[in-house]
Amino acid sequence: MCRWLAYSGSPVLLEELLYVPANSLVTQSRHSRLGVETTNGDGFGVGWYANAPTPGLFLSTEPAWNDRNLRELAAQTSSGVVFAHVRASTGTAIQQTNCHPFRHGRRLWMHNGLIAAFPLVHRELALAIDPSLYPEIEGSTDSEILFHLALTFGLEQDPPLAVARTVGFVEAIGAKHGVAHPIQMTVATTDGETTWAFRYSSEGRSRSLFHSTDITTLRHQYPDNPTLHSLSPDTRLVVSEPLGDLHGAWREVPESTCLVARGGVEELRPFRPRR
Amino acid sequence: MCRWLAYSGSPVLLEELLYVPANSLVTQSRHSRLGVETTNGDGFGVGWYANAPTPGLFLSTEPAWNDRNLRELAAQTSSGVVFAHVRASTGTAIQQTNCHPFRHGRRLWMHNGLIAAFPLVHRELALAIDPSLYPEIEGSTDSEILFHLALTFGLEQDPPLAVARTVGFVEAIGAKHGVAHPIQMTVATTDGETTWAFRYSSEGRSRSLFHSTDITTLRHQYPDNPTLHSLSPDTRLVVSEPLGDLHGAWREVPESTCLVARGGVEELRPFRPRR
Amino acid sequence: MCRWLAYSGSPVLLEELLYVPANSLVTQSRHSRLGVETTNGDGFGVGWYANAPTPGLFLSTEPAWNDRNLRELAAQTSSGVVFAHVRASTGTAIQQTNCHPFRHGRRLWMHNGLIAAFPLVHRELALAIDPSLYPEIEGSTDSEILFHLALTFGLEQDPPLAVARTVGFVEAIGAKHGVAHPIQMTVATTDGETTWAFRYSSEGRSRSLFHSTDITTLRHQYPDNPTLHSLSPDTRLVVSEPLGDLHGAWREVPESTCLVARGGVEELRPFRPRR
Amino acid sequence: MCRWLAYSGSPVLLEELLYVPANSLVTQSRHSRLGVETTNGDGFGVGWYANAPTPGLFLSTEPAWNDRNLRELAAQTSSGVVFAHVRASTGTAIQQTNCHPFRHGRRLWMHNGLIAAFPLVHRELALAIDPSLYPEIEGSTDSEILFHLALTFGLEQDPPLAVARTVGFVEAIGAKHGVAHPIQMTVATTDGETTWAFRYSSEGRSRSLFHSTDITTLRHQYPDNPTLHSLSPDTRLVVSEPLGDLHGAWREVPESTCLVARGGVEELRPFRPRR
Repeated sequence: MCRWLAYSGSPVLLEELLYVPANSLVTQSRHSRLGVETTNGDGFGVGWYANAPTPGLFLSTEPAWNDRNLRELAAQTSSGVVFAHVRASTGTAIQQTNCHPFRHGRRLWMHNGLIAAFPLVHRELALAIDPSLYPEIEGSTDSEILFHLALTFGLEQDPPLAVARTVGFVEAIGAKHGVAHPIQMTVATTDGETTWAFRYSSEGRSRSLFHSTDITTLRHQYPDNPTLHSLSPDTRLVVSEPLGDLHGAWREVPESTCLVARGGVEELRPFRPRR
Repeated sequence: MCRWLAYSGSPVLLEELLYVPANSLVTQSRHSRLGVETTNGDGFGVGWYANAPTPGLFLSTEPAWNDRNLRELAAQTSSGVVFAHVRASTGTAIQQTNCHPFRHGRRLWMHNGLIAAFPLVHRELALAIDPSLYPEIEGSTDSEILFHLALTFGLEQDPPLAVARTVGFVEAIGAKHGVAHPIQMTVATTDGETTWAFRYSSEGRSRSLFHSTDITTLRHQYPDNPTLHSLSPDTRLVVSEPLGDLHGAWREVPESTCLVARGGVEELRPFRPRR
Repeated sequence: MCRWLAYSGSPVLLEELLYVPANSLVTQSRHSRLGVETTNGDGFGVGWYANAPTPGLFLSTEPAWNDRNLRELAAQTSSGVVFAHVRASTGTAIQQTNCHPFRHGRRLWMHNGLIAAFPLVHRELALAIDPSLYPEIEGSTDSEILFHLALTFGLEQDPPLAVARTVGFVEAIGAKHGVAHPIQMTVATTDGETTWAFRYSSEGRSRSLFHSTDITTLRHQYPDNPTLHSLSPDTRLVVSEPLGDLHGAWREVPESTCLVARGGVEELRPFRPRR
Repeated sequence: MCRWLAYSGSPVLLEELLYVPANSLVTQSRHSRLGVETTNGDGFGVGWYANAPTPGLFLSTEPAWNDRNLRELAAQTSSGVVFAHVRASTGTAIQQTNCHPFRHGRRLWMHNGLIAAFPLVHRELALAIDPSLYPEIEGSTDSEILFHLALTFGLEQDPPLAVARTVGFVEAIGAKHGVAHPIQMTVATTDGETTWAFRYSSEGRSRSLFHSTDITTLRHQYPDNPTLHSLSPDTRLVVSEPLGDLHGAWREVPESTCLVARGGVEELRPFRPRR
C-alpha cells in the first residue's frame, strides 16, 4: 500500500534518488521488498522545491517504472527537498487527483497506509474539514482527507500537534463506528524547509519506515564508498524501505514516533494521538 | 460545456449513433455548432444496456475523436438504450470519475451545464446527500453532486419530482449565498426503460436541447431517404444539437420542460423547481 | 514477457475468462506464477468476434488490473472466440500500437517471447515484409514484425506453413548476425473459426503453454464441480499458464508443437521451422 | 496540422513561452488562428536544454490545454533553448513516440506539415535511412522518418545541406510514385546552440511561419511595454503563428527559406532542395 521517500539536503539530481539506488523507489514500484503489496503500480508522484513560489508536482497514473516523462524530469531537475511516492491503491480510483504528494500552498503531504472502514467514516471526516478548505479536495482518497483534516487542525502552525489531533479525531470517529483499528500510517509533510515524518497505527503495528544514518559517521565506516563522499553531510532521507543494502546506513523509525529534520539536524520524538 | 445524446428504440449499433451522422457526437467533440465551447475534448462517456444486470459504461479522458477503443466498441455493440456524452470541463479535473454518464444501479445520469459558484456551495450540497449515497461519490464535478442529490430526493421513485426538488434545493442554497443564477442544465436520466430529459436554467436561457421528430411522419416527408427507413418507428433521440441537417427532423425542447420517452411514446411536460 | 489466453467454444461472457478464474489473466497481470516476469503491467489487449465483419479490439497501456473499461466491457460482452494478452515489455515503448492482439482483416495474432537481438535484425526483417503490408505496421515490437512476416509468408492460406517459414527466416537472419538463439515464442493466431497455437524456441526451452482438457472427461472426474457443467463441451482454451488448480484440467503443450483447434476438436502436430 | 515554437535567448521560465502570451502555444492547441486545423489536441511535446548531457523531453498524448504536469513543469523550469509543439494528427496514432520534438543525442527536430501519400512512399524512405539509425525509430510518423533521413544525409555536420538533400530525396521518391506535391513543411532543428528553421513546400504554398523582430528595435517602438523590457536582447523566436498582436513584433519567414539563429544573431537564406 504505497512506498515513499522524503529527501532533504544539498540539491541533488532527482534521478540520484529515484533511479540510481539498488532498491530505488522506481524499483520498489515493481518489486517492493517490505511493502504489504509487491507491486506499487497504481500511479506515482514527485514533489520538489525549485525557485517558484510553490513546489512542483509531477503526478501520473502510470506505473512509475514505465513513465518516460518521469525519467526525463529526473535527469534534468535538481532540488534540495524532494518527496516521491509510488501508489498501490486500496480500492479508490486510479487518477492523478488520488496521487501523492498532495499540495497546499508551499506544503506537501504524502501517506502510506489507510483509514480503516473509510466508506463508513468518509462523510463524517469530510464534514470536519474547514469549509474554506473543502473545495480544494479533488480526489477520493483517505490520504487527501487526512491532509485536509491536518490543515484544519493547524498543520501550518504546529505540524506535530496538528497530526496528533488529526489522528486522535480519526480514532474517535472510528471508535464511534465500531472500527477496531481506525488508522494505519506513515506520513511525511514539509513546508520546503523542515520535514516531519510520522510512523503510527492504532494497532501498534505500523508500516515500515527508515531514516538514513548521519553521512559523516558512514564515511568513517566506509572510507572507500564513492557515493557517500558525493552526498553532502546534511543529507536526510526518510523512506518506506532502505534504498540499498549498506549495513548501518539505515535505522528503523520506531513505532509511534515523529521525526523532524531541518538543516541536516534530525530529531525523534514520541508521537501520541490527541483527542 | 458538454454535448450529449440519449437514444431509445430498437437495438442499434453504437457507431450509427456516434460516428455515422453528419454532425455526430464524435464530430461535435471537435467542432460543436451550438455549444458554449467549440471543442468538447475533455473526455467522454458512453452508457448502454445489454443483458447484464447493470448498464455498461465506457469512460475515457481522451478526446472522443481520438479514442480507438470507442470506435471498436461502437462497431461491435448494439443496444436499445444508449447515453453518450462529450465533455468540456468547466475547470474540474480531467479524470474518468468526472466523465458522464454517472451510474447508480440500473440508472444513468448525464448533464450539460453547471451549478454556478460551485466551490461556494459544494460543501453544503454534499452534506445534503443521503449519507448512504455519500461514499459512492468518486469525482469532483457539480454534475455528480446533482445526480446524488436527485437520488436523495427520490430519483428512483419519481424522477420529475426528484429533479424538481433537486433544482429547487440548489436554487435555494445558491440564493442563500447570493448567487444570481444558481443552475444551468440539460439533464438526461434513464432506468433502461424510460428516459427523462430536462431543460432548465435559473436565468431562463438554457443550453440547447432537441428531440427527434416521429419517424413515421418523417418518412412521409422524405419517401426516398434510406436512413429513415432503416430506423425503427419507436426511435427517440434527445440531443444537445441536431445530428444532421434534415429539415423537420428535429424540434427544440422548450425552456423549462421535462420530456418523457418510453416505448416509442414521448411526452413533454412543463418543468418547475420545487422548494 | 507477457501472458495470453485463447478461447474458442460456445459464446461466453468475457469476464468468465478474464476475471472469474482463480488464476485469471487479470490476476496474472499482477502476479504471474510461471512467467519470466511476475508483473505483466505494461498494457493489455482483448480481441473478440461478434457480428461485425472484423473482430473487436480493446487495447490499453494501463495495467489490466486497473482498467475499469476492461471490467465493463467484460461484463457486457459475450463471444465464442476470444484472444486476451497482458504485456511485460522487453524494452519497447508502452503504447496501444504495441499491445497484442494485432489484427489484419479477420485475423488476430498474439505472441509471448522475443526475437533476440531485435535492434540488430529489425531492419532486415522489416524489409522482407510484403511492401503492400508494410504501411500497416504502427508499432515498434518484434511481435508485430513477426505477424507481418507470417502474413507475407502465407498466413492467410496455410498458417502452420507460414509460421514455419517465418521462424525459419528469423533464425536464418539471426544466424547471419551471429545470434545464438534467434527466437523464443508462444504464438496464437485465429481467423475467427480455427485457432492455431505454436510453442517453439531456437534453444528448445520455450515459454510455458497449456491447453485445457476435454470438458466431458473432466466432468466425469469432477461430477460436483459447477463450473465444468456450465462450460460447453466444445470449449478449448490455450493459455500461458493454467487458470486454476484443478488437477487434470490442464496439459502442457509440448516443445516444438503446433496446436489446431476448430469446432471443439483439437489436434497437436510437431512444429519445425522451414528455411 | 501542428503548431510549434522555437525559442533561443537568455534562460526563460517555460510558462512565459507556453502560457503567458495572448496567443500562446497552449492557447493555439485549442484555438489555432492560422493552422489548417483549429484544434491541435492530439498530443504535444516540449524539449529544453538544462545542465544534462542531452536535452529534456516531455511528451504527452493529452491535449496540451489539459495537461497539469505540463503546467507544473513550465512553472518550475527555465531554459535558454526551448522547442515546443502541439500536434494535430494527419491520421497516425496518438502515442508519445509520435509526439515532437524528436531527439538524437543533443539534437532536436520538430515538423509541421506532411509527406504526401506517406503510406505509398513510407517503405522506400525508411530503407534509405542509415541502418545504424533505423532501430531508433519508435513511432509511425512521416516527421520521424524525415528526421532520420536528415540525420542520414548529414544533419550533424551541415544542417542546411542535409535538409536540402532530404527534401530533394523525398521529392524524387514522390515524383517516382506520381505524387504531385511530395512535401509540405516547416521544420526546426537545434543542437542546443544554433537553431535552424525551414519553410518549404513542393507546391510553394507552405504552412505559416514567423520570426520575432529584434527586441531592441521593438523597445524603441514601444517604450512603455513591460514585457519587451523583461526579454533579453538576444531573444529569438520562430513560431507557426504570432504569440500576440503587437504590431511590428513578428515577420513572416518567406517561402523557401532557411533561418539560422545563434547567439542573438539571425540570418535568412534561400532554401532549395538538392537531388
